[in-house]
Amino acid sequence: MDFSVIVIGDEILLGQVTDTNSGFIARTLAPDGWTLKRVLTVGDDPLQIRQAINICMADSRLVITTGGLGPTKDDLTKAVLTERFGGRLERDPAVTENIRRVFSLRGLQLNPLTADQALVPTSCRVIQNRFGTAPVMWFEEAGHVLIAMPGVPFETEGMISGEVGEAVHNHFCADSHTAHHTLLASGITESALASHLEDFELSIEGRGHLAYLPVPGFIRLRLDVTAPTRSEAEAVVEEMAADLRNRLGDYLLYDGDATAEEMVLDILRRRHLTMSTAESCTGGTIAGRITAIPGASEVFSGSVVSYSNDVKRQVLGVSAESLTDYGAVSEAVVRQMAEGACRLLSTDCAVATSGIAGPGGGTDEKPVGTVWMAVCTPSGTESRCMRLPGNRRRVIDRAGTEVLLMLYRALRCD
Amino acid sequence: MDFSVIVIGDEILLGQVTDTNSGFIARTLAPDGWTLKRVLTVGDDPLQIRQAINICMADSRLVITTGGLGPTKDDLTKAVLTERFGGRLERDPAVTENIRRVFSLRGLQLNPLTADQALVPTSCRVIQNRFGTAPVMWFEEAGHVLIAMPGVPFETEGMISGEVGEAVHNHFCADSHTAHHTLLASGITESALASHLEDFELSIEGRGHLAYLPVPGFIRLRLDVTAPTRSEAEAVVEEMAADLRNRLGDYLLYDGDATAEEMVLDILRRRHLTMSTAESCTGGTIAGRITAIPGASEVFSGSVVSYSNDVKRQVLGVSAESLTDYGAVSEAVVRQMAEGACRLLSTDCAVATSGIAGPGGGTDEKPVGTVWMAVCTPSGTESRCMRLPGNRRRVIDRAGTEVLLMLYRALRCD
Repeated sequence: MDFSVIVIGDEILLGQVTDTNSGFIARTLAPDGWTLKRVLTVGDDPLQIRQAINICMADSRLVITTGGLGPTKDDLTKAVLTERFGGRLERDPAVTENIRRVFSLRGLQLNPLTADQALVPTSCRVIQNRFGTAPVMWFEEAGHVLIAMPGVPFETEGMISGEVGEAVHNHFCADSHTAHHTLLASGITESALASHLEDFELSIEGRGHLAYLPVPGFIRLRLDVTAPTRSEAEAVVEEMAADLRNRLGDYLLYDGDATAEEMVLDILRRRHLTMSTAESCTGGTIAGRITAIPGASEVFSGSVVSYSNDVKRQVLGVSAESLTDYGAVSEAVVRQMAEGACRLLSTDCAVATSGIAGPGGGTDEKPVGTVWMAVCTPSGTESRCMRLPGNRRRVIDRAGTEVLLMLYRALRCD
Repeated sequence: MDFSVIVIGDEILLGQVTDTNSGFIARTLAPDGWTLKRVLTVGDDPLQIRQAINICMADSRLVITTGGLGPTKDDLTKAVLTERFGGRLERDPAVTENIRRVFSLRGLQLNPLTADQALVPTSCRVIQNRFGTAPVMWFEEAGHVLIAMPGVPFETEGMISGEVGEAVHNHFCADSHTAHHTLLASGITESALASHLEDFELSIEGRGHLAYLPVPGFIRLRLDVTAPTRSEAEAVVEEMAADLRNRLGDYLLYDGDATAEEMVLDILRRRHLTMSTAESCTGGTIAGRITAIPGASEVFSGSVVSYSNDVKRQVLGVSAESLTDYGAVSEAVVRQMAEGACRLLSTDCAVATSGIAGPGGGTDEKPVGTVWMAVCTPSGTESRCMRLPGNRRRVIDRAGTEVLLMLYRALRCD
């Protein structure tokens, strides 16, 4: 079944806030067989909100709006909804009670502007918002449902994972279920992989779908199967995944969906090993990516960002001769950086980078994008040089991903 | 002038990838007077792409599509565009040449699927994509323009900031020029600042516009003036900026548009000082933000990410007693971290963080979001504790911004 999301808010169109609600709703409703058909983002403007509702209600049995509610702007959205679905605005005692509860939890005094959030169209059924003051409103029209939700991600995520998701499930008889399986492939371009998997795609035609989602460093392959029951969808997708794993052979990087840093944390945990980083051109971003994952401290001890040659020498113990003879961006230096991190930070493994992220600093011999990488594991030290495309940020990101994948592969093959 | 963005891609509707292109395009084109009216996100489906183009072309003089191009799926989008705008698909030798160039830079062999990216509708003008293989296509119809751009953020951002943005300017606004001046304010809420600047806003009415763009840590105030000539626009905006600076007084944080890390690099350069970071909860992200700026190596030497207590003690020299008596998240520890970084990395200044980013690890006394920060300068060490709202990522980002602003203020007031 298809559904549409309408995102309401000037702040999104101004580029000040990025909408993450629509993706969260899509992922949450997908297991029930819902396919997000479109997301329409409009400003806090009655004409545009009205037009968006018309477009989406015309072809989607379920329409979810997020945002456009809140003490300073909900009059507008509620007026459009009341005009569209009929009835009039009336104060709902249960919503008033909920607003009081939320305010007292936050230790705040109720003000008239917020109290008016309890005004709701008589044409809707209210689902109480456990996470905030704006009520969730459920409208029906000719077999189509529109649910108006708040825009704050914390509230939307909590409600769609809870009461609102349940209400959707109960209302629409779930006559089909969708199951997914993601595999990661690397060592081949997207187009070459598409040729390689042509037969596989033909073999699943009509029963499932394979999506190519290239990200820097590897290609995500997502299998989707829709079937009348959840168990059938899961059985079929697993059978297809087994076939796909075989066909991928050495191109299979990881069975599941993960980032490079998640793969590394996963294998370090399974092997009871610890790691650190020694970063020059990546400037601490590898450590930042690892520590963004809750629980990273189990396996990650720390990092030395050796941006200057003095720090490479004095803190990581890189030899002055190597720096003079080969330069900071060299195999000798990056290997000593990785080994120095293992020693100084007392870890089993380390990754190191030294390169020219640009825009300046490139030479004929070592152009911008040249990055030396090393990984140190209990089996020894490996190193590699890459020439990465793109601007400074992309070179830095890609170097981080590549050296993490190097570590993952080294630990996997051990 | 209003414009619309159409985001094409199943991966976005599946919630696997978050669209950031539309926000980037909105921010990039805003200074030229463009207002993003809607974003319509649809899947890789001809019917939906066609419908989206119809909806947007009906009321926007400029429509930008992102995504739906790439070796495995561009047939579809190009077929819709050719059907809509006429002509037929023909191989463009300049695009072939560009694809060859991109592939040889990446050290890859060209394959037939990618070579077919050079097939473009004869009804479009091609803008060569400097950052990838998918050509940018410019279509015109009854005074309306549709630009089809790739979906990879690196490519879209590079092209809209460069050739595509210029082409839009030359086509639509060759006869008017807009000048901007941004000032940063802090120490006051957005609503109090709006009251404070009410008279100023009245005084520029009809001649210019003041936009409030709050970001974590401070408020960006952007003045826009549009005039027939560039020199006139610039003269008026500078006169208004001088008035605004006076009215802001102590609330003025920075004259210009900058991130916290840019302000810090700027003042360090002007004062001929160097810095380092000692990071626990921010995990290297402060160093990563600083080194993302070209030329950071002039003033930034490096960093120690002391994620474990062992590293805090053995590498940064934090005393075992402080760690035992006060815990890692404490004033005593964070001050020793900052001082340890200055000493170990031989820098004039340092910033340090130690906190609980969540989701786990909080206690009644030190709940999630508690972050101790310290800055070390030639005048001494300062420290401060904050309770930051939001999830793990937000706490980490905000802690980085706040400690960088602490360093900036300490160096500015010296």
